[in-house]
Amino acid sequence: MRYLVHGGLVNGIRQDLYLEHGRIRRMVACDPQAALPQSDSDADPSLAGSWEIIDARGMLVLPSLVNGHAHSAMTLLRGVAEDMELMPWLQQAIWPREARLTAEDVYWGTRLAALEMLATGTTVCADMYFFPEAQAEAARDSGMRFIISYPLIDGLDESKAEAQRDACERFFSSLPDCGPRSMFTIAGHSVYATAASSWRFLARMCRERGLLLHLHLAETESEDRFCRERTGMSPARYLDALGVLGPWAFAAHCLWLDAADWDLLADRGVTVVHNPASNMKLASGPAFDWEAARSRGIRVMLGTDGAASNNSLDLFSDLKLAGLLQKHHWRDPRRAPVQDLVQAVTSAGHDFFRTGAGRLEEGAAADLVLLDLRKASMTPCHDPLANAVYAGAGAAVDTVFCDGVPLVRHGRIEGAETVLAEARTRAEKLR
Amino acid sequence: MRYLVHGGLVNGIRQDLYLEHGRIRRMVACDPQAALPQSDSDADPSLAGSWEIIDARGMLVLPSLVNGHAHSAMTLLRGVAEDMELMPWLQQAIWPREARLTAEDVYWGTRLAALEMLATGTTVCADMYFFPEAQAEAARDSGMRFIISYPLIDGLDESKAEAQRDACERFFSSLPDCGPRSMFTIAGHSVYATAASSWRFLARMCRERGLLLHLHLAETESEDRFCRERTGMSPARYLDALGVLGPWAFAAHCLWLDAADWDLLADRGVTVVHNPASNMKLASGPAFDWEAARSRGIRVMLGTDGAASNNSLDLFSDLKLAGLLQKHHWRDPRRAPVQDLVQAVTSAGHDFFRTGAGRLEEGAAADLVLLDLRKASMTPCHDPLANAVYAGAGAAVDTVFCDGVPLVRHGRIEGAETVLAEARTRAEKLR
Repeated sequence: MRYLVHGGLVNGIRQDLYLEHGRIRRMVACDPQAALPQSDSDADPSLAGSWEIIDARGMLVLPSLVNGHAHSAMTLLRGVAEDMELMPWLQQAIWPREARLTAEDVYWGTRLAALEMLATGTTVCADMYFFPEAQAEAARDSGMRFIISYPLIDGLDESKAEAQRDACERFFSSLPDCGPRSMFTIAGHSVYATAASSWRFLARMCRERGLLLHLHLAETESEDRFCRERTGMSPARYLDALGVLGPWAFAAHCLWLDAADWDLLADRGVTVVHNPASNMKLASGPAFDWEAARSRGIRVMLGTDGAASNNSLDLFSDLKLAGLLQKHHWRDPRRAPVQDLVQAVTSAGHDFFRTGAGRLEEGAAADLVLLDLRKASMTPCHDPLANAVYAGAGAAVDTVFCDGVPLVRHGRIEGAETVLAEARTRAEKLR
Repeated sequence: MRYLVHGGLVNGIRQDLYLEHGRIRRMVACDPQAALPQSDSDADPSLAGSWEIIDARGMLVLPSLVNGHAHSAMTLLRGVAEDMELMPWLQQAIWPREARLTAEDVYWGTRLAALEMLATGTTVCADMYFFPEAQAEAARDSGMRFIISYPLIDGLDESKAEAQRDACERFFSSLPDCGPRSMFTIAGHSVYATAASSWRFLARMCRERGLLLHLHLAETESEDRFCRERTGMSPARYLDALGVLGPWAFAAHCLWLDAADWDLLADRGVTVVHNPASNMKLASGPAFDWEAARSRGIRVMLGTDGAASNNSLDLFSDLKLAGLLQKHHWRDPRRAPVQDLVQAVTSAGHDFFRTGAGRLEEGAAADLVLLDLRKASMTPCHDPLANAVYAGAGAAVDTVFCDGVPLVRHGRIEGAETVLAEARTRAEKLR
């Protein structure tokens, strides 16, 4: 299918976007007052043939959003317990329920997450959870791009760790089908839940197979203390000593880092993922030091974390929060300017995960979000990007393309009813 | 018109709400699986006659939200300038444009604000801006409840202050028609923009006429410094010395208060309005000390502040932010529990402004918001209030009643197109 996205605001001017084979084939300035073009374009012979027209007049076109860190199937645990301290919350509310999750639950929880993310403009999600086969199936069926990780979480138990590594090798020797848009990567949970031997294994897998490595790093003070007491090193130094840190690594949270740690991440080319809602809700630590990353040229992505600790997967909401938190924490309203924020949720992630999208230019992959600027919340539009960041844009998402396919049209997603009903039933069991 | 809101989740169980003359007349537990009731109720002879049925099956019914502090017509300035320090932002971006605003601009800007607030579940807004006559007209035409203030802002210029007081007396001797749902109150801008003589006048007006007093208090460090240098007192002490503080006063921001100031506010029965988005975006100060208010029994409402410094009027979004900020700032996830947050945006404001709403019980005023729990973002629903606070509920608002009238139905508001078009034109002039 070929699509002509007509008359939207693209990079500051009204343009027609011709989408073909998952890419932006041509961009042509247009008159937004003009009538809808004929689907059989006669303006340019190279564009002959039929194009399905998507009316984007009155809409802002942006690259789609990339969720750099999520546990998608935790949608099933949304709101299961609130206002609790981290350890009781995990021990009493989360872990006992996670222990009961089946592969089918993870499938439907991931499908539910995909509905919510797509409806709010996200087409790429880096996931870390259990049952990667079920996630692969959900990724394929949802149509969006998942970066599915095979996680090594052994609780520092060497025999368990060894069995997991064997299972991981087998998994990568015969990968399940996750569809053409998604990919597999590998994950180490954290310095307190993944054994040194497994970190070495992960580092080798990344080097040998060109895999990306998803991990939690320096999320809590107790993690930092645990690591220093056990190894004499900060979590970042310790992982580096094991060979883990490199341009393949993307590390969620990164709250408890000192200047030397930041220098190390910069030197190794690590990408960091900031999760403002989850960090604030769990009171995980100091504010993320965006400037420490920015000044060192470290790539920053944003993530929602799981829906149990957010409790939303609307990344536009976290985008606003990220900006507000930087300004507030550093007592400087000039921090985290709009442009940097937009880049963190779009091009940073598309570049890191090599989707080919993240920019509105000919040849780029067609992962696009269309925001309806005619909504009250988007009116007026003195500054389209400021509206996107601060005016609640998640609720203004009208249409979303992933890989050139309109997965969301006027807020609707095909097959949503079935997913919602199944997810509801699955969640019911977890009460 | 009489309405039967059928089958929604009300105070934890499925109930039918019979709405008549702006109030909840009867509440009857119902079977949500049953078919829609007949509009001519035969279950109870006292409910005979016809009721228009609003299908609320699959929805959560809550009291509507109260926005305790806004400058509604600043919607026209949404996104006009970002990432600037407070004084340059005011001096270069905001004040020159505000100087050009006409009464008609304020009318349409306020109508635009009403669209956005209604669509996200707010039916009551305490406003502080210019041209109260225009606001009155907008309040009446929007159908929602505005608390319109006549503001005294004199820049500490005594001759200007005197003229304003005269105009204020005249205004209150012959009030414009703001419709049956709205009311007028009086406002002092701040210790740095309103003269002592005018504060004394405001205090007298509140005492003699039973008016409420809307003010900004202790928003910035420079305000605190200015007041101490000039008067030897903190802003709260200074206003108290002028007789301003009393149960009639509701004070926005309240960031730069010490323990003695908090004691004073408690002693005088002042209500405070927390504006988390604006405070963080403008980097106004330390985090609002909710616990200082709570522990002293001080009523706390939430506000959006103006759309130029937020940039949204979706109070559900600020509700989440308020919770996250408390947990983060005090490093304690138990702070600001869900129930307290919900109370701050519902009953606290309805009680203070005496709308008669704020609770779901027979006889209460029918200001209601219906959240669609079938949306992906609201699925599952382990905890309806947690979903309302943390899962982006502004985007799940389906229907909103104000004073028993459904002003929002399935997200639609009558006459919205005209308001949007006019507001857009007005904003265009302010570029």
